[in-house]
Amino acid sequence: MEFNKELKDIKNYSAGKPIELVVREYGIKPKDVIKLASNENPYGSSPKAIEAVRAICNKMHLYPDDSMYELKDGLSKRFNIRDDEIIIGAGSDQILEFATRAKANDQTSVLMAKTTFAMYEIYAKGVGANILKTPSDTHKLDEFLKIYKSKEDISIIFLCLPNNPMGETIKKSEVYSFLKEIDKNTLVIIDGAYQEFATYKDKQMQIEPKDVIEKFENVLYLGTFSKAYGLGGMRVGYGIAKEEIIQNLMKLRPPFNITTLSLKAATEALKDDEFVKNSIENNFIQMRRYEEFAKSLEIEYIPSYTNFITFLLKDGKNSSEISNSLLKKGIIIRDLKSYGLNAIRITIGKKDENDSFFETFLKIYNVG
Amino acid sequence: MEFNKELKDIKNYSAGKPIELVVREYGIKPKDVIKLASNENPYGSSPKAIEAVRAICNKMHLYPDDSMYELKDGLSKRFNIRDDEIIIGAGSDQILEFATRAKANDQTSVLMAKTTFAMYEIYAKGVGANILKTPSDTHKLDEFLKIYKSKEDISIIFLCLPNNPMGETIKKSEVYSFLKEIDKNTLVIIDGAYQEFATYKDKQMQIEPKDVIEKFENVLYLGTFSKAYGLGGMRVGYGIAKEEIIQNLMKLRPPFNITTLSLKAATEALKDDEFVKNSIENNFIQMRRYEEFAKSLEIEYIPSYTNFITFLLKDGKNSSEISNSLLKKGIIIRDLKSYGLNAIRITIGKKDENDSFFETFLKIYNVG
Repeated sequence: MEFNKELKDIKNYSAGKPIELVVREYGIKPKDVIKLASNENPYGSSPKAIEAVRAICNKMHLYPDDSMYELKDGLSKRFNIRDDEIIIGAGSDQILEFATRAKANDQTSVLMAKTTFAMYEIYAKGVGANILKTPSDTHKLDEFLKIYKSKEDISIIFLCLPNNPMGETIKKSEVYSFLKEIDKNTLVIIDGAYQEFATYKDKQMQIEPKDVIEKFENVLYLGTFSKAYGLGGMRVGYGIAKEEIIQNLMKLRPPFNITTLSLKAATEALKDDEFVKNSIENNFIQMRRYEEFAKSLEIEYIPSYTNFITFLLKDGKNSSEISNSLLKKGIIIRDLKSYGLNAIRITIGKKDENDSFFETFLKIYNVG
Repeated sequence: MEFNKELKDIKNYSAGKPIELVVREYGIKPKDVIKLASNENPYGSSPKAIEAVRAICNKMHLYPDDSMYELKDGLSKRFNIRDDEIIIGAGSDQILEFATRAKANDQTSVLMAKTTFAMYEIYAKGVGANILKTPSDTHKLDEFLKIYKSKEDISIIFLCLPNNPMGETIKKSEVYSFLKEIDKNTLVIIDGAYQEFATYKDKQMQIEPKDVIEKFENVLYLGTFSKAYGLGGMRVGYGIAKEEIIQNLMKLRPPFNITTLSLKAATEALKDDEFVKNSIENNFIQMRRYEEFAKSLEIEYIPSYTNFITFLLKDGKNSSEISNSLLKKGIIIRDLKSYGLNAIRITIGKKDENDSFFETFLKIYNVG
């Protein structure tokens, strides 16, 4: 059977290995597996969200409220925006997909950093768009601007702030200066999946959805419940933009794209500021231990505004070998070889998980 | 901002009204609202699935196992097929979307019954495909064949068996005769969302996934956990086809398209045959009451192989007026006016829900 030509080019996303797989493949007990691979919240989810979801497990037969009234109400109050400036996706991923399909096509290019969230490229290839990348792995807005000014056909610019899998971010003032240079017909997606972490670490990095969409009508801001809010398994993200953009993205939203239990989980998680605050505080306390650890081994790292840290390994050390050795000991991290880097990305875990990582890594690193 | 031209044509799916909305709009207490609008399982979900999901509510922070090992394992045993002949979607809807994007485009047509599941047309318009419909509201395979033979560019044929929102289905022998006439490069999607009901009512209607894909390499069979399995809120469906088709659809599957809790719910629901059997038995016991009721009022209805029944109203009776009057009394059904029919679709509820429907409907119908 013949399929549409765009499919030929598509490479699938390679996800962090789930605990179940390590259990199956290496015979390690589930309780002995430490997963520092997918930037999940190691402190779990808000206890209030867990309780609320448990209470409605007997409602799984009922289709979700497709207007998402409660969750949109919560988000509109949180960000001081209108309901019609919000779209909810099955993870912010899904909103990336809507935006790409709404705006990019095989007659346009999209622009992103050399090393950034893999789904930007995957979705853009899915619509046959031409992919443009800056020379640097991390975000350099002057590089973005140079390419943007040299091309006529750029439909979307992806800014991942902070950037996964590198960890860097950019000051609001610089982002705004950049946005002023961009034509109103080019969609700029600011993927703020880790914004809660950046904002906590340095207020200058904070991109506020209401402010940015009021100043720049061509910006789509994305947030997620998968990281600081501890709901990675529930697939809920949101997009905030001017009504015109949201209305067009809504045309591509399939009905019932969020499950009944996920809507409840996100609605309740959004109310639990204390859980989020504690998670982020602990994250940066533990992050300092990774920084000290890297320094002690003279491993280069990128100062991180997220819940992970990326170690750039020296020649002679191999990220894939190290990742595989850790995996066999039950520690799952992310090898960045598939991004063309000799680097590893480690999610900041809880204290005891990080202790195990340091101990096991040392043994492997000094031998290898 | 300009958007891709396909978006202009897209009309959004109008979902059945959720209970929450009726509560908000008409001030009716949630416990007094009867929802017979979305073909949900009125008996809820499998108690075993509910228990299993409750037990892992503290795992919501963990991304789902994206290989979906457990659920695929369950389905492959149930249908006696291989893992690589299965794709899991966020509802079978999502697999319809993958298939449409993989196979249809603005150079091709798609063919469906005049009155059938609305998402076929919505997804096809999303890729700019030309929509062809048979003259009859219900499935007439001779009409499908006549159109198919007269056109060169048909990429997908949608067969909804049994058909939502009409309720009819077609014998396996007739479906197979039809499939023999179809070119191997045309994808035939057999949407079996209600097959469990049809199979129970009349074995001659049963389409077995293994058998149909072995005989016809161009068939994609779809099933769902939303209906007989009672998990409408959890968004899990599956597609079964030859590996070549599945591999191509997998290219369009976004990572983590099923939540952690939904995977568990579906895996456990699949094991609970007794719950499904009881649900279906009760469905047809209650269905007979609707048939008697319709006859007593001389309302025409279509013999249904599903968990709903469609009443075709006489001139002088208006489906929208009747639906709205019921809504104000807290009974939600589906007006089929948007399909161009003066008809209503009623999900077969539990005994007491149906009692309330009959009582309230009588009052409205005899006045109106």
